[in-house]
Amino acid sequence: MTPGKQGPERAEQTKLRMTGDEFRTIWRKPDDATIIQIIDQRRLPHEYVIHDLTTWQDGARAIDDMLVRGAPLIGATAAWSLYLAALERRSEPDCRQYVLLAADALGNTRPTAVNLRWALDRIRRVIDESAAGSDIVAVLEAEAQAICDEDVEISRGIGEHGLTLIEAIAATKPGKPVNILTHCNAGALATINYGTATAPIYFAHAKGIDVHVWVDETRPRNQGSQLTAWELAENGVPHTLIVDNAGGHIMQHGLVDLCITGTDRTTRTGDVANKIGTYLKALAAYDNNVPFYVALPSTTIDWTISDGKSEIPIEERDPDEVSMVYGRATEGLDSVNTVATNTRISNFAFDVTPARFVTGLITEKGVCEASEDGLASLFPELAGKR
Amino acid sequence: MTPGKQGPERAEQTKLRMTGDEFRTIWRKPDDATIIQIIDQRRLPHEYVIHDLTTWQDGARAIDDMLVRGAPLIGATAAWSLYLAALERRSEPDCRQYVLLAADALGNTRPTAVNLRWALDRIRRVIDESAAGSDIVAVLEAEAQAICDEDVEISRGIGEHGLTLIEAIAATKPGKPVNILTHCNAGALATINYGTATAPIYFAHAKGIDVHVWVDETRPRNQGSQLTAWELAENGVPHTLIVDNAGGHIMQHGLVDLCITGTDRTTRTGDVANKIGTYLKALAAYDNNVPFYVALPSTTIDWTISDGKSEIPIEERDPDEVSMVYGRATEGLDSVNTVATNTRISNFAFDVTPARFVTGLITEKGVCEASEDGLASLFPELAGKR
Repeated sequence: MTPGKQGPERAEQTKLRMTGDEFRTIWRKPDDATIIQIIDQRRLPHEYVIHDLTTWQDGARAIDDMLVRGAPLIGATAAWSLYLAALERRSEPDCRQYVLLAADALGNTRPTAVNLRWALDRIRRVIDESAAGSDIVAVLEAEAQAICDEDVEISRGIGEHGLTLIEAIAATKPGKPVNILTHCNAGALATINYGTATAPIYFAHAKGIDVHVWVDETRPRNQGSQLTAWELAENGVPHTLIVDNAGGHIMQHGLVDLCITGTDRTTRTGDVANKIGTYLKALAAYDNNVPFYVALPSTTIDWTISDGKSEIPIEERDPDEVSMVYGRATEGLDSVNTVATNTRISNFAFDVTPARFVTGLITEKGVCEASEDGLASLFPELAGKR
Repeated sequence: MTPGKQGPERAEQTKLRMTGDEFRTIWRKPDDATIIQIIDQRRLPHEYVIHDLTTWQDGARAIDDMLVRGAPLIGATAAWSLYLAALERRSEPDCRQYVLLAADALGNTRPTAVNLRWALDRIRRVIDESAAGSDIVAVLEAEAQAICDEDVEISRGIGEHGLTLIEAIAATKPGKPVNILTHCNAGALATINYGTATAPIYFAHAKGIDVHVWVDETRPRNQGSQLTAWELAENGVPHTLIVDNAGGHIMQHGLVDLCITGTDRTTRTGDVANKIGTYLKALAAYDNNVPFYVALPSTTIDWTISDGKSEIPIEERDPDEVSMVYGRATEGLDSVNTVATNTRISNFAFDVTPARFVTGLITEKGVCEASEDGLASLFPELAGKR
């Protein structure tokens, strides 16, 4: 189930697995502490290419150009980038200051995802708390690693809690698959492993539940057709690709039992900012009585805001993301421009789904209502801090 | 505003114009009665290529392979195809029978659009009613031409009635553009000229009203980015291309004053089957109090059915339409495959928007409520016939 053309470094990574900890989307190169490695996700599913980061600016570019994407992985990449910044100035007196400047710059790469801010704040805090003269490099390596390890545990928690929802549906239709629609990639590739929206799916599949996933293509960047379809195939999970336009039709016709998406930022009231188009699927789910769940690590909750529509900044990206489509051409890999050259294009990257359309939130601590009370019931300390 | 690369026959056609009758999407070649000409719409906006039809099978293939598309143009192409069938057997005794067999075959090319059935029935009727020994070729040429001429008048009627809606909105926001969202191409290219959804826009633009159109890309075939954007540019109408996912976000943020789409089949109760994804936009319009109008010639009303969801067959098309994206590559025009080769794809071409989400229907006879009473008020004779 691996894609046809594989990068030479493919052997370094074990095959993606929904169980076990073998797979990672970011890691320190085992034999070289100066290199952080990621998968260049822009090239999937056509090529599996490992990309080296050797400076914090490499990390910023990887986030900005979307070699890595997905709120949790963006946060982890920022953390590892600050490790590289510390490494660069290890023996200089301004090492801490340099890392903090890098943190500020990294904070500006992607405005919508709140995990980025969360990860940077966490690194700032450990720097602040570490004793004068302590080895910041070692501190930051441990912290970046901890962020990654914790993220895997968070995804595992989401998977376990979401599994109960899928099991409940499976019990109502024995012998038939549970059809789950997802948008974009809130998968293993968006996190460190397992994913958020996909974690319950992987756990259900591993448990032998017959699941089938409707994968939204997710224009403009095609994270569904290129990333989610790829990782579901790697894990042997049955799935069917559809265009983003198709979700309403299939929900109208009873072909979807459950929607699960991710989120890049969640207000304390349960509004969710996620990949553009999520809101449209939530509307269709609502109109057809299909449960619509959003899976999230608590790190994507922004406790400081209550109204997603007015308070979450929506990133606008390069129009070329819309006009240029990448894939396998007659001769090798290429991009085609689908539109006339003078066409004006607008490219909003996210939209906000109001909490009233969200059946529930699946977190590492359990499933709750998409509301202030719901989130506070699972995270009383965090909710109290705001 | 014409696309960069033009077919050699470009000079035969005058520039698309929203006023005047110069532009046609299908016509008998002026100096050769054996050839019907169309624009190969698959190649826009990159190339403007005139395609010759010399047999009725050419016409069937043009419909099937979507060189022509759009409910009214499909009907007109079927009518001209039957003219070609008659021409082929002009001097044979089985000419009428041959034409009727061709009509049956053409009827199977596209299941959703009802205009096809309407046009074929109309041709069958004139054959039936024409005196023995009369020249069927002449009869069918006149009928196909009449269908086209009437369609232009129908679009003009839709344009005039829809104009009043745009004028009313313009009056509420002086000095600011009226922002209209449309999905797919219900434009001049989907009809004979002017379009259905675009006719009010062209009429408003011609009257000097400041209109701006949000053009949905319309995956999988990109009729929005490739056809609607092209014809709006040809006519000088300001527009911005967005991905299909973006409509909800821009409606949430007050950037859309009005939605107008077309329809391939409308039930007598006002449910509309239109390009996949239309339903999602209607849901978003409903949630944000944006008026959602559907423009249609009365020929797309199926008076025999009342429930769109259960009674309108939804065509499923080739998965390659989803995976293969056509455009301008590094070296000339090419298609790229965006997905892994083993990815399973489902490709529903239309969806049904229930009447409850449709603010009103814009027809050649006026604007009415999307309901049985509404349609019957405008078309009492047709409504009575069922």
